[in-house]
Amino acid sequence: MENVLKEGERLDVLKRENIHIIQSSAVFSFSLDAVLLADFADLPRVKPAKIVDLCAGNGAVSFLLTGKTKNAIVGVELQEKLVDMARRTVQLNHLEEKVSFVHADVNEITQWIEPDSVDVITCNPPYFKISDSSFKNEKDAFAIARHEIYLTLDQLMKQTSHLLKMKGKAYFVHRPDRLMEIMETMRKNRIAPKKLQFIYPKHDKEANMILIEGIKDGKEDGFRVLPPLVVYNQKGEYSDKIKGILYGEQ
Amino acid sequence: MENVLKEGERLDVLKRENIHIIQSSAVFSFSLDAVLLADFADLPRVKPAKIVDLCAGNGAVSFLLTGKTKNAIVGVELQEKLVDMARRTVQLNHLEEKVSFVHADVNEITQWIEPDSVDVITCNPPYFKISDSSFKNEKDAFAIARHEIYLTLDQLMKQTSHLLKMKGKAYFVHRPDRLMEIMETMRKNRIAPKKLQFIYPKHDKEANMILIEGIKDGKEDGFRVLPPLVVYNQKGEYSDKIKGILYGEQ
Repeated sequence: MENVLKEGERLDVLKRENIHIIQSSAVFSFSLDAVLLADFADLPRVKPAKIVDLCAGNGAVSFLLTGKTKNAIVGVELQEKLVDMARRTVQLNHLEEKVSFVHADVNEITQWIEPDSVDVITCNPPYFKISDSSFKNEKDAFAIARHEIYLTLDQLMKQTSHLLKMKGKAYFVHRPDRLMEIMETMRKNRIAPKKLQFIYPKHDKEANMILIEGIKDGKEDGFRVLPPLVVYNQKGEYSDKIKGILYGEQ
Repeated sequence: MENVLKEGERLDVLKRENIHIIQSSAVFSFSLDAVLLADFADLPRVKPAKIVDLCAGNGAVSFLLTGKTKNAIVGVELQEKLVDMARRTVQLNHLEEKVSFVHADVNEITQWIEPDSVDVITCNPPYFKISDSSFKNEKDAFAIARHEIYLTLDQLMKQTSHLLKMKGKAYFVHRPDRLMEIMETMRKNRIAPKKLQFIYPKHDKEANMILIEGIKDGKEDGFRVLPPLVVYNQKGEYSDKIKGILYGEQ
């Protein structure tokens, strides 16, 4: 199995789905964000549906979603190296009929995927404004994945809205400090925020991640804040909820 | 002591502050919302400051705040019966130098309190839109306290902004389903949301209250989501955090 790997790459296992995923600490490796996003997204298990994962990276979210639906999943990723890793993971796990990747800029995605056609979109986008950081001129793989160099929040929401069918659903993972901007940008692009969940590293720590669901042309009422998701218990181990998400029912 | 009470009234004790407060289940009695709001608000303990509690009801928040500051607190309440209860509580507890009440409509508050003069505002406002309910034509004391009959969110934020000094702080308790509207209305009225805390009845239940801090003409960055506040533990008793807030350090 090891000979599918290029220099600096390693294989990790998505335990619940039993998928071997190619990672690279030099280029990109997924983290808990991806796992929580895939778990949060509500997919039709059997009913035919078009499912798209934007900013797919090495494909972690796309691969994790295979456990939740019989439908095929299309990942979209700008960075060629990451698309290459993701495609080799497809092959390695014989998932050709379930997952494929488009090498494209999200801003141009309607050249590949028809507008108003998608049932569910997931996205783990770049979290940081470029004004926040010194990454402005560094366009390495990490900077592109983490900073809004090629895709801003507003561009993301615009394209998401473009792709989604009416009443189609979008799921995002992001940072709490941008909550207001996220909700406003969703709304501006006709995606009504419906469910919000906060991730707290420990029960006495501030939230460091949010999960949010929006519905295209959805009603504005009935907005809900789901139960808190606390990552570590008081012993410093993963909480039972997180273990359930990572490894399946305990 | 009992002879200060009018028909249908009772005395409850604010334990941490050792204040006897006049309540009436027929008119108004405070609940956990008030206690959490008073605990959440950040007041200057000694430094001279003007502190105002809007929608004061029977004064619970105002009385609770006395434990956090040497400054006097002014409560503002529209309903005469509630102002009367609050003023009798002042007298009963000999708090004339610390708490006073203005009987006024928040929409006309700048007739009583100078604009741009207040350091800290707290408010436990009516939670429900009148369109949500059948209370539209019922103007009893409960309906007025709970529904936006005389004060909408937008009117509240407008007056709060009017009263606050530049960099003055405002604290609100409200419902999560109106989060988006609350944050937008704050911003529209030059109050930058800074801290947000969610109250969950139990660790596996959706949030049913929010606490939010805003700063007049504050910067937009540095928005934080505080640790979760879970009201009941798994045995169905108040959690340690809530006991600390209600009864002081355990």
